[in-house]
Amino acid sequence: MAERDPKQITPKSEDFDRWYTDVVRRAELADYTPIGGCMVVRPYGWALWENTRDALDAMIKRTGHENMQFPLFIPESYLMKEAEHVEGFAPEVAWVTHGGDKELEERLAIRPTSETIICSLYAKWIHSWRDLPVLINQWANVVRWEKRTRLFLRTTEFWWQEGHTFHETSEEAAREVDTMLGCYRELAEDWLCLAVVPGRKTDSEKFAGADYTLSIEAMMSDGLALQAGTSHHLAQNFTRAYDITYTDRGNTLQNPHQTSWGLSTRMIGGVIMAHGDDQGLILPPRVAPVQVVIVPISRSNDPDSARLVDDAVDKLERESQGTGIRLRVDRREGIRPGEKYAHWELRGVPLRVVVGAKDLADGMVTVVRRVDGEQQRLPLDTLAVQLPRLLDEAHHALRARALKMLDDFSREVGSLDELKQAFAGGPVWANAPFCNTAECETAVKASVHAVTVRNLRADRSAGGAPCLACGQPAEHVALIARAY
Amino acid sequence: MAERDPKQITPKSEDFDRWYTDVVRRAELADYTPIGGCMVVRPYGWALWENTRDALDAMIKRTGHENMQFPLFIPESYLMKEAEHVEGFAPEVAWVTHGGDKELEERLAIRPTSETIICSLYAKWIHSWRDLPVLINQWANVVRWEKRTRLFLRTTEFWWQEGHTFHETSEEAAREVDTMLGCYRELAEDWLCLAVVPGRKTDSEKFAGADYTLSIEAMMSDGLALQAGTSHHLAQNFTRAYDITYTDRGNTLQNPHQTSWGLSTRMIGGVIMAHGDDQGLILPPRVAPVQVVIVPISRSNDPDSARLVDDAVDKLERESQGTGIRLRVDRREGIRPGEKYAHWELRGVPLRVVVGAKDLADGMVTVVRRVDGEQQRLPLDTLAVQLPRLLDEAHHALRARALKMLDDFSREVGSLDELKQAFAGGPVWANAPFCNTAECETAVKASVHAVTVRNLRADRSAGGAPCLACGQPAEHVALIARAY
Repeated sequence: MAERDPKQITPKSEDFDRWYTDVVRRAELADYTPIGGCMVVRPYGWALWENTRDALDAMIKRTGHENMQFPLFIPESYLMKEAEHVEGFAPEVAWVTHGGDKELEERLAIRPTSETIICSLYAKWIHSWRDLPVLINQWANVVRWEKRTRLFLRTTEFWWQEGHTFHETSEEAAREVDTMLGCYRELAEDWLCLAVVPGRKTDSEKFAGADYTLSIEAMMSDGLALQAGTSHHLAQNFTRAYDITYTDRGNTLQNPHQTSWGLSTRMIGGVIMAHGDDQGLILPPRVAPVQVVIVPISRSNDPDSARLVDDAVDKLERESQGTGIRLRVDRREGIRPGEKYAHWELRGVPLRVVVGAKDLADGMVTVVRRVDGEQQRLPLDTLAVQLPRLLDEAHHALRARALKMLDDFSREVGSLDELKQAFAGGPVWANAPFCNTAECETAVKASVHAVTVRNLRADRSAGGAPCLACGQPAEHVALIARAY
Repeated sequence: MAERDPKQITPKSEDFDRWYTDVVRRAELADYTPIGGCMVVRPYGWALWENTRDALDAMIKRTGHENMQFPLFIPESYLMKEAEHVEGFAPEVAWVTHGGDKELEERLAIRPTSETIICSLYAKWIHSWRDLPVLINQWANVVRWEKRTRLFLRTTEFWWQEGHTFHETSEEAAREVDTMLGCYRELAEDWLCLAVVPGRKTDSEKFAGADYTLSIEAMMSDGLALQAGTSHHLAQNFTRAYDITYTDRGNTLQNPHQTSWGLSTRMIGGVIMAHGDDQGLILPPRVAPVQVVIVPISRSNDPDSARLVDDAVDKLERESQGTGIRLRVDRREGIRPGEKYAHWELRGVPLRVVVGAKDLADGMVTVVRRVDGEQQRLPLDTLAVQLPRLLDEAHHALRARALKMLDDFSREVGSLDELKQAFAGGPVWANAPFCNTAECETAVKASVHAVTVRNLRADRSAGGAPCLACGQPAEHVALIARAY
């Protein structure tokens, strides 16, 4: 068998994992480093994250939260105060033991998440009900020592936002948990064109130390699920352990109710796996670092036609300035048009505008949409003002494709046998009535290799139908799938 | 002597250092944490940094750079390759020795700066002159183990941007070093209203591993200097040590020429120390988290006047929506106007708009400017459209005040004796002809307690006047001052 061109990416159907890594590296989103499990995020990948971050940051601020910044280090004794939390995180913590030449008196954990340091600090800042609610967020790097890593999906260091709030009542905290999951869903759907299912995690899958955890699970194009954002009701579990108290409206000392919620660079992995194809990335137009690429096609042996093309490109570039559209012209010399097309297809640019002398003779240019290859000849004169509409249409086409994929992969099952049958032909998303006991969850996991209950869907109810495992009347519809 | 009200801040004249810490903590910009030398940056302080960051980020992108993100960890062996660099940074590095339960085979430094990891990675990405220039930047947290710390000015963890570039020629790298120092100067002057002096560091003060370092030195209101941004020409020092090579236009293997440049949260400390007064912060209008605060004054026993005031405040709030002005209304109940004034003065809000029934009877409101207390009665009807102009005037008033301060503290000296005399009455900024030898630098430092040559001014030349120390003809004008 002939060696594959090293510039080619592995076909998705041949090996999804290699396809993924090829796309991430060839599109120059990110790369591995010699530092165990840590990645370097390259300019194209970081710009994608910055656009995603800015969209979410606006929602976080719109819902009344303020950004701040907590220390990277957490003293070992702080981490150890909440029992479940310690158990969940201690095995994957990186430890600082020396500062300069000196051994530290107490080891410092590099934050795997910041609840413990935040609680320690807020214990001295919260006194009265007038200090509540506290609504804060931080954008930060966190470290979890991972044995098996994949770019964006699971790396030792990753980047995220972590929101942390304190409230007078459990009900208010519950509303906060819902609100922020709503923001994650809005980001996933309206910005990233993903198909997601919101719901509640089972007890075995919730955040270490939480009362309960909500998640959105995003549909990947191989039929697996990606947990793409989680929002936790921490009740008084941490505020009791860290002795945060306030005087309530009735002058009684209380522990506030707490939430936390996070979304990370993992989401970039989700965007790649949900939308990409054998040519490479397909980026959601609203976050794409380059939304429109212009490829001029001119023959150097015809100076008149070359001038015509140059003028048209200059006009488009000029007219789209100040519109906020992220447009780039590929003026590289010595590279054939087909190579340029492949270059920008690999990078998932939503729209390609081909400006050639033949089209221009009719006053036209050709616009090609990345998501489905749809071509249109459009008048040069009005193209710049049409770009926002064309991008919007590309957005909706990508979102519709994601929803169709969710539909195609979804199955309704009523028993463990039906669950097994549903997975017989490959990964699917199975929906099933579920009683939410630990025994039935174990039975589900035992019946099909590597599946888990992703969440109990927030958008559906089983209405008393028999649980797929035990047959008792069930309230929940469980989403059962394999996951990253 | 009576105890001072703990809410009061120490007068500047009494104890500048305590004044500084009081302001930072009482204005809720930041606070110490129990983690040695690490600070927590609170929402008001982080918003100030975000605005500063966004202004600089736009300049960094405007000058052709792209953001990316490198790992937090640097293997010990990477750090050790450039001799001067190791010597400069090794004593203040925090070391990770354990991941989870396991001891690491090689210790990992938490980045004190990223040249070494960046060189290690770019060694495999740079091949040809076509790959140059590389123009990148990262916004990140870095850690330097500090023994004596002060909020914002010197903390174990701090936040910054670090730019890193690779070029074909030394001249191109030199232009880059100049360009980025120019951006820092623009940020300092046009956004932060600081008075700064650009120049070149002496060899004893340059970055560990650099050929030379440029800096801007900012004037603090106690007469000290703050190094507020540095830009380094690294020549081929690192690219040789890390074996980065490229094939040049003549098909010869070369090491690229490199630069790096950084500006950190330290700048926030500079803004506080340059502008603040005994009432607290005075924030530069273009980065102030709250630019305008409206204080309604209504007597609850007169419902008609209360309604009049409420309507006027609503009108202002409505009319300034969408203008991009960061405006807040202080509607807190049970708090006297004087307390509200003090609250926002402490927080340095550039403009206070007082809306009271008496003024409103004439269709007027009162606007008070934080920088100099200047009061104006202005018509309510046109106030919203006047706010950008009023903020701009406040900006220029603050900048003029900073320039006057620079003028007031500046001295021209021609000899070490004159230098001593200049400092006899307290810290000043002395300008002196200087030959730039290590011997004369030592003589300068020995002649007045704690002074250093801050930089060799880029904006002046000594034109052969005798060096203040040795009397030989000198080219440079040295800026000599005490510094943070």
